[in-house]
Amino acid sequence: MPLPDLPLAASSTGDVLTDLFLVLVAAKLGDEVFKRIGQPAIVGEILGGLLVGPSVLGWVEVGEVLEVFAELGVVFLLFWVGLETKLSEMKAVGPTAVGVGIGGAVIPFGVGIASGLALGESTETAVFLGAALAATSAGITSATFLDLGINRTRAARSVLGAAVVDDIIALLLLSVAVGMAATGGVDAGEIALSLGISVVFLTFFALGGSQLLQRRPRLLHEPHFSESPLLPAVILCLGLAAFAAGIGLAALIGAFLAGMIVAETKDQSSIEEEVEPLYAFFPPFFFAFIGIELELDALIDGETLALLAGITVLAIAAKLIPSYLAARPALGAHEASIVGVGMTPRGEVGIVVASIGATEGVVDAQLFAVVVGMSILTTILAPFALRKLTSNPPAPP
Amino acid sequence: MPLPDLPLAASSTGDVLTDLFLVLVAAKLGDEVFKRIGQPAIVGEILGGLLVGPSVLGWVEVGEVLEVFAELGVVFLLFWVGLETKLSEMKAVGPTAVGVGIGGAVIPFGVGIASGLALGESTETAVFLGAALAATSAGITSATFLDLGINRTRAARSVLGAAVVDDIIALLLLSVAVGMAATGGVDAGEIALSLGISVVFLTFFALGGSQLLQRRPRLLHEPHFSESPLLPAVILCLGLAAFAAGIGLAALIGAFLAGMIVAETKDQSSIEEEVEPLYAFFPPFFFAFIGIELELDALIDGETLALLAGITVLAIAAKLIPSYLAARPALGAHEASIVGVGMTPRGEVGIVVASIGATEGVVDAQLFAVVVGMSILTTILAPFALRKLTSNPPAPP
Repeated sequence: MPLPDLPLAASSTGDVLTDLFLVLVAAKLGDEVFKRIGQPAIVGEILGGLLVGPSVLGWVEVGEVLEVFAELGVVFLLFWVGLETKLSEMKAVGPTAVGVGIGGAVIPFGVGIASGLALGESTETAVFLGAALAATSAGITSATFLDLGINRTRAARSVLGAAVVDDIIALLLLSVAVGMAATGGVDAGEIALSLGISVVFLTFFALGGSQLLQRRPRLLHEPHFSESPLLPAVILCLGLAAFAAGIGLAALIGAFLAGMIVAETKDQSSIEEEVEPLYAFFPPFFFAFIGIELELDALIDGETLALLAGITVLAIAAKLIPSYLAARPALGAHEASIVGVGMTPRGEVGIVVASIGATEGVVDAQLFAVVVGMSILTTILAPFALRKLTSNPPAPP
Repeated sequence: MPLPDLPLAASSTGDVLTDLFLVLVAAKLGDEVFKRIGQPAIVGEILGGLLVGPSVLGWVEVGEVLEVFAELGVVFLLFWVGLETKLSEMKAVGPTAVGVGIGGAVIPFGVGIASGLALGESTETAVFLGAALAATSAGITSATFLDLGINRTRAARSVLGAAVVDDIIALLLLSVAVGMAATGGVDAGEIALSLGISVVFLTFFALGGSQLLQRRPRLLHEPHFSESPLLPAVILCLGLAAFAAGIGLAALIGAFLAGMIVAETKDQSSIEEEVEPLYAFFPPFFFAFIGIELELDALIDGETLALLAGITVLAIAAKLIPSYLAARPALGAHEASIVGVGMTPRGEVGIVVASIGATEGVVDAQLFAVVVGMSILTTILAPFALRKLTSNPPAPP
């Protein structure tokens, strides 16, 4: 009789509990300090993670459990954002969002490829740099919009819609990049298939799910296992998040969809109240994890720092300008500038693209550090800029 | 420049999200079915886990992330129980709890050693069997008491107090068992030290923490990082849970203490309301995980099944009878029988003891399967018996 897999002894789970405790405390201390000095709380949380991570104190290492908590952090964050979003309101900003999403993905992709080639990298590597620059992190901007209380404005919805469009485009670009790195060629049929699946997924669940709950608004109340609709809603959130990840999209897109669907239910406000503790608990792990992932050592030499500065400036300009231009006709200059800035954070998406490139062997350690650094810098700078933009509203015409 | 550790790509985190989704759905389906047929919900959750686990469908494997979720499940469960418990109420049942805890640990330990030796096992192995039989799972009984709405009775508090006492005794017994298995001897000084640390920990935090919050009831409201006291309370819970695990106690003891401390704060009812979603989300993973860990294959042969039946009967009798006798003078026959049955589930604690024994090389695959089977059987039977006992209250004298 073979010895079964042993569950780990209590002490090792205790170590993970300690990690979770340290990360939560670090994130919340950063939050506390930044709130007290009037600066964006999520930047405080990222820096809190950086402090306890391998770069500074080394109390906490990157591991599978922390990664899953970070993922659930962005999942519950976008679930929360979805809960506050009605499908009809998303449709209203649809054309703008699509324009911003396409402009804000295609231009940075081109700029990334051109910069890569100009730096003497191979085509495969340049394509990965392009894909990393094309990414958008809906999580960071959403959290900042929530923080500033402007998450229900047209600008916020446009950024959110554009982020969804961007994620589909990023999926395509990543398929191209991986195809080129792995086989030197690209399978157009496979890419068309994954595009088709994502569009069908989004349409089917967004329209079908919303309509189902509009017709049976007490559906989430029906199970006996739960007195409140919280767990059915959370199960829907995890299910769609896992499904989105399974077809190659970001898990957060599924969570956002689930939130929008649940928003159609009868007592949406009581569900919000119940989801709030999960939204308070998980997202700090997401922000702190970004800081934990940053390896300062890898960045500290002159050449790398210069490269980082250059790529970061390019990354901001290549995203901000086309997004601003695409949003301006519908939203006007002030809201368009919020959209432009809101599109710049690369967050976890840029880091994931760089990781895949490194796994495929076409992104070397220096470029990896630069892309991760760029992702984090754009993530840290955007909340400051958004705060500035929204505290100085334009003079009435 | 060395290549930094790569974060896992999106797809692997997606797999974990799928696992979490499947486990939550399985637990809640089991819950739903058992509620509809009028049976204990947690048994349904355990069987739901068994269904998707390696023994039946094999959709979900035991892994670090699930294990941490299971641990957080029992942590938030006991945090919740602690929130509903006042230190003064615990003190009232103190002597009974200590009596039940000592009787319900020492007798099963002796019975386990005797049975082990009678079966022809070595002394080291027999000591592990004794330690596994001495364990008490506060989680299972607490959940059943909550389910039946009798968690604030003297019987429930006595079981809880006895479980804390038991955990300290189990820590000592386990130190003895590991000492004998590893070195053939026992370091009395080390054991006295760990006993001292646990008693100081419990006393210091239970008394000190409660008094601090009695004096400054708005302490948890003071941080700026949180509008509500939820996150400060959760940080305290994780911190004490990690600390308890760090000194060798069960994490759930720290969580229970944290709950009791937070119960002293000003608006304890609003904290309860906020903790409830976390209490709804995590514990199903704990119950389902017990089912996932069960390997039916390892149990299906005549000799093993006979051994399992014998050990399970012994485990129940050796715990029930002394606990009943110790509780009867203070609580009377009916409540004492609730205490006796409430002490029988071995749950995760029995499984952990068996795992450590297997790691030390003194518990073989058959005995491991039997101890895990016994832990799960006692866990599944107790809720049925408690339900029966509480639905037939004794005739008034």
